[in-house]
Amino acid sequence: MSFECYSNSRLGDAMQTKVSGNTMKTRTDVDYLFEPRSVAVIGASQNKAKIGYRIVENIISCGYKGEIYPVNLKGGELLGNKIYPDLSQICGEVDLAVITIPAKLVFPAVKECAEKGVKHLVIITSGFSEVGHSEEEKRIVRYAREHGMRVLGPNIFGIYSSAVSLDATFGPGGILPGHVAIITQSGALGIAMIGKTAAESLGLSVLVSVGNKSDIDESDLLEYLAHDEATQVIVLYIEGVKDGERLVDTLTKVTRDKHVIVIKSGRSKRGAVAAASHTGSLAGADEIFDSVMRQCGVLRAESVQDAFDWARFLADSPLPKGKEAVIITNGGGIGVMTTDACEKYGVDLYNDQKTLKETFSGVMPDFGSWKNPVDLTGQATVRDYEHAIEAALANDEMHATLALYCETALFDGEELGRLLKREYTLYQGKKPIVFSLFGGEKLAVITSELRKEGIPVFSDVYDAVSCLGALYRSWRNLSTPVESAEKVEIDTGAVQTILDRARSEKRGFLLADEAQKVAKILGLSMPQSIIARNLGEAVQAAAKIGYPVVMKVVSKDIIHKSDAGGVAIDLVNEEEVVDAYQAIMRSCRSYRRDAVVQGVEVVEMVRPGVETILGARQDGSFGPIVMFGLGGIYVEVMKDVAFRAAPIGRKEAHAMVADIRSYPLLLGVRGEKRKDIDGIVGVAVRLSNLIHRCRDITDIEINPLVVYNHEDGVKAVDVRILFKEEGEVR
Amino acid sequence: MSFECYSNSRLGDAMQTKVSGNTMKTRTDVDYLFEPRSVAVIGASQNKAKIGYRIVENIISCGYKGEIYPVNLKGGELLGNKIYPDLSQICGEVDLAVITIPAKLVFPAVKECAEKGVKHLVIITSGFSEVGHSEEEKRIVRYAREHGMRVLGPNIFGIYSSAVSLDATFGPGGILPGHVAIITQSGALGIAMIGKTAAESLGLSVLVSVGNKSDIDESDLLEYLAHDEATQVIVLYIEGVKDGERLVDTLTKVTRDKHVIVIKSGRSKRGAVAAASHTGSLAGADEIFDSVMRQCGVLRAESVQDAFDWARFLADSPLPKGKEAVIITNGGGIGVMTTDACEKYGVDLYNDQKTLKETFSGVMPDFGSWKNPVDLTGQATVRDYEHAIEAALANDEMHATLALYCETALFDGEELGRLLKREYTLYQGKKPIVFSLFGGEKLAVITSELRKEGIPVFSDVYDAVSCLGALYRSWRNLSTPVESAEKVEIDTGAVQTILDRARSEKRGFLLADEAQKVAKILGLSMPQSIIARNLGEAVQAAAKIGYPVVMKVVSKDIIHKSDAGGVAIDLVNEEEVVDAYQAIMRSCRSYRRDAVVQGVEVVEMVRPGVETILGARQDGSFGPIVMFGLGGIYVEVMKDVAFRAAPIGRKEAHAMVADIRSYPLLLGVRGEKRKDIDGIVGVAVRLSNLIHRCRDITDIEINPLVVYNHEDGVKAVDVRILFKEEGEVR
Repeated sequence: MSFECYSNSRLGDAMQTKVSGNTMKTRTDVDYLFEPRSVAVIGASQNKAKIGYRIVENIISCGYKGEIYPVNLKGGELLGNKIYPDLSQICGEVDLAVITIPAKLVFPAVKECAEKGVKHLVIITSGFSEVGHSEEEKRIVRYAREHGMRVLGPNIFGIYSSAVSLDATFGPGGILPGHVAIITQSGALGIAMIGKTAAESLGLSVLVSVGNKSDIDESDLLEYLAHDEATQVIVLYIEGVKDGERLVDTLTKVTRDKHVIVIKSGRSKRGAVAAASHTGSLAGADEIFDSVMRQCGVLRAESVQDAFDWARFLADSPLPKGKEAVIITNGGGIGVMTTDACEKYGVDLYNDQKTLKETFSGVMPDFGSWKNPVDLTGQATVRDYEHAIEAALANDEMHATLALYCETALFDGEELGRLLKREYTLYQGKKPIVFSLFGGEKLAVITSELRKEGIPVFSDVYDAVSCLGALYRSWRNLSTPVESAEKVEIDTGAVQTILDRARSEKRGFLLADEAQKVAKILGLSMPQSIIARNLGEAVQAAAKIGYPVVMKVVSKDIIHKSDAGGVAIDLVNEEEVVDAYQAIMRSCRSYRRDAVVQGVEVVEMVRPGVETILGARQDGSFGPIVMFGLGGIYVEVMKDVAFRAAPIGRKEAHAMVADIRSYPLLLGVRGEKRKDIDGIVGVAVRLSNLIHRCRDITDIEINPLVVYNHEDGVKAVDVRILFKEEGEVR
Repeated sequence: MSFECYSNSRLGDAMQTKVSGNTMKTRTDVDYLFEPRSVAVIGASQNKAKIGYRIVENIISCGYKGEIYPVNLKGGELLGNKIYPDLSQICGEVDLAVITIPAKLVFPAVKECAEKGVKHLVIITSGFSEVGHSEEEKRIVRYAREHGMRVLGPNIFGIYSSAVSLDATFGPGGILPGHVAIITQSGALGIAMIGKTAAESLGLSVLVSVGNKSDIDESDLLEYLAHDEATQVIVLYIEGVKDGERLVDTLTKVTRDKHVIVIKSGRSKRGAVAAASHTGSLAGADEIFDSVMRQCGVLRAESVQDAFDWARFLADSPLPKGKEAVIITNGGGIGVMTTDACEKYGVDLYNDQKTLKETFSGVMPDFGSWKNPVDLTGQATVRDYEHAIEAALANDEMHATLALYCETALFDGEELGRLLKREYTLYQGKKPIVFSLFGGEKLAVITSELRKEGIPVFSDVYDAVSCLGALYRSWRNLSTPVESAEKVEIDTGAVQTILDRARSEKRGFLLADEAQKVAKILGLSMPQSIIARNLGEAVQAAAKIGYPVVMKVVSKDIIHKSDAGGVAIDLVNEEEVVDAYQAIMRSCRSYRRDAVVQGVEVVEMVRPGVETILGARQDGSFGPIVMFGLGGIYVEVMKDVAFRAAPIGRKEAHAMVADIRSYPLLLGVRGEKRKDIDGIVGVAVRLSNLIHRCRDITDIEINPLVVYNHEDGVKAVDVRILFKEEGEVR
């Protein structure tokens, strides 16, 4: 057999230049995945029904200019390309190997790739961890990493990269280059997305199927995309999160440069169950996912359609310079609906009556209204419409425009189409504008034509405002300076000592006095408390603390003190302390005959305030997280809780507190004073640091954290701490 | 001038037959509006730019078979029809007169119509109450009614009725006949809807613009549509409600026969303001509107697009026979998303694992999942898909089907299109089915073609499930038997006497003892209470009631007792009663020096329970309404309140109580017992009767209504009653 040896292609040279050129970009691990100079397809096939044919066909028809090396033991030719019987017979370098052969043949092929010096493996083949064959998958990844290769997949449909015009997928082809990157965990949905994006003229910079994420995951890809000039918007379709901590870190950084949209199915209880059975990965509590994505500055879309509408708009629209938008309409009813939609999607409306009048009263027919929504009435001509839209553009205090058109008898479709195009061009690069056209077939045709040209026109006003709302949410995130997590001094060594001591007693929870010590280390103000070993000490303790007091049993055998009758509150004098002591001892003995009771804890009775719950735990998806809510049934019944990935700074802690629906209670209602929100924030920041640094602690709950008026502080009444028992340490 | 006199047309005869025929329908007032045998257009014009031309053109091109009489002083001919200089020169009867002449000429024309014996006036002309000229509008309506004519409008775009193929609007024409009736308050939006329905092949039975609703309003039209055989679904676009009580009555009846969908803009605060300035009608609290519509069995859509999607689906779909749906998909990810959507839109999923396995395990490829969502995987052929959909149809326990398709490499568009059509035909009249196709251009074409044929196919799963959810909500309403408002004996005469007495003292509110009397009439259990005129009596009263007691000042000069320091609680012995009495007198005197203090009220201190608020008032839109919520900040901060139009029966009262988000609290959380929900229901029913029958009472608030455990009853701690002062009586 004879070999032809190619020199590196033009593209290869060009890319070398690019690498060493002006951009001064250092090639990261993942760069070669998106900008390979050559691609081998292992399992290339002459059978048109095979994936190995489809991929080679897509690579060629997409116009990839690097070297293509189909590989198949049988040899021969495929679509004008020589088929190599094995990798060793290829003379040039192979940056990327796409593997489509059956699962059991993959490992030997990976070994060959290592020998050839391949940089990246794209393993299309399925039949690995998704069907329980995790060991084989791990073996492949271990071997690949040991030999300097990174692995995308397995169980994927491939990768598209506009940078080198590479469509190494077995999708339907026809991908348009553009500014939106898609990373998808679902293969079926991903392939359908290819067709969908093409049908909607949504141009892509990158499309990657991550499948089993055996090595390369969303975070690796996001790191590349953060610096990819072609990419303006990143759309993630996620079914389950693996390394949530890293994902949070990466997303927090990436959202400073790119708009990021996430679709995560399994929101509902039943959906989460379905997702788990579909992907084998636990979806985790959706409320946590939702909170954490907001914390990262990520926009969450419910449906693929929303995500695509937003992505297209965000990719092309300039950022607004301020928060106030103007609605221009020729119909009152549709103007009101749009106002509703603006409130729903968080778009503020410009409200300076004087300026509105000055700006618009001259450019509208009689009976029109210059108030916002600016109503030009059904009598408006295309000319009136034009003047109003341009008047809004000319005014620097109006930061975005929503232009609505209801079909009227005066309607001239072609003229309207030309107008929208002209106005869009005027706005481009200056201000965001969205259009909504409501009416018949002709308007539908105009809408569809303009959309194909990338102009943001919608038939339903809610869809139009939803896009502008997404832009505003992303803009607000960008406008908020990044907060570096506060340096908090916490003596974690001391905490560890307390945990170790409890562990030596085979406990996974701390006793009250131990938890109090941790609280003290955290700088938490807790009620004064004295442990009394007998009745006499209890009476003395109560006198020292001052009445009224609370009394709680102390016993490592009794965790649920209330259930055991081990708690008495509001004891106002010595007589009541004596009675309560005896009652507690009696109850606890009958609750658990063999309980060893160390004594009672006599505690200062905390004066009333707003009861809140502040908690922290190690989450299965995101690692250390903190949570906040109002006490009692607010959390349990109303599910009025906010979460954040830990650690957090003061601003993020404040945002978490403000996230709950019952937040107005803390601001003061019914003439009550503002509560000590700063106090809560301080505790939340310290707690987030502790849970982040002490991974042994699985669960801390401060419940209730009583909050007093502004500057009067907060008081932790009870702190419950659970941790990993010996042997569980990771 | 010579006159030609026509005999009544064929259509007229046909309709006479219909009226006296099998349907045995009694012609109501409004029937001639929808089924006129002849139409005069007053203001018909030869000028194509005029509304008077457009309407005649639409009537002719829509194929109206009755007599058309264009009327214009100038005479002549219009589109082959003789123009009459005035009505008197028309020989035949005129059922309907469409008036398009300027506002100041309308009244004289109405007089002419009266002389001619016209039955209905459709006044297109604007320039009446919507611009402040209410008097002229009232004069026209008064005259018309006195002469046996009903008025639609003014300020409208006209009326379409498929029953007689009449398009008497100045819209774009091309309306398709069908089963959806549209009633719209917005003219601009209504005209645009004409085009939109045509473009989406949504067939209409009726389209009416109600404009200023000077005479005929939604309720009149709904009464006709309730019996209109062609109409399956009614879509209402409402901006403001005028006679809400009648609307509630009518809607409650109509929804037993037809699906009713309402779009009401002005949901948001700012939207409500915009709506008020646009229509001049106050939108009212959106929460009340929302609650009351649900009470009436009406589906509320947010956007016009949703309303149209639902209307189209509801018009053609059979009702389900039960609540459990099955998802059939070829992609796991899209299946999970659909599961989420089902939870969002209230569609239950079939869950009998055994039956699912039996039904589907034989009709799917390897690796498929017979669990619901039934996942046929990307390997599924069109044949597999067909088998699964038909298996679901064959199983009587599966009541509706959601069939999803993600574009795959195996995809054959034409075959899929044929399949969906065939399956839809199989399901028709038997079970509801919706389809969702996700993918590229070819799928988009199939989707659009199938939609044109009336098959419910959507590209986004959320849109598909939203339709099925609407059908289920309507079905649940129909499945709930109508509850006739309970007959409650309330001595309203006695209440009136109490009000009259207070009025004689120039008060608009009741004193505590008066309110207590009303409470007693209502059968409310209130804390024992004694009015004491001096300290001695107060001490005696407290002893009689039993400690602890509450003491409140009694003075018609002091409404806000707490603010005046006029309330003392938890008085446990005589000493505390003495101290509190003196403190109250001191505070009230310094609060308002000239206050006449009648004494104090000594009240039994109520034992704690769940605090709720039960209220009733005369609402500007809907008349008498009741409301319920949990006490304190649940209502104020969390806005967790439910409303109902009064009067209500026990079932509706129960539904109101269950509507609040905090309802689980009443069911018992944290091991607590169920609360006395029946007790709340009983009070709500009686209160709703009182507010319905005593229209003088503007506001009653029982706050708190303390609710104890199941069967332990409820206790009204405070009842506040406001009423119309003398002279305000309507």
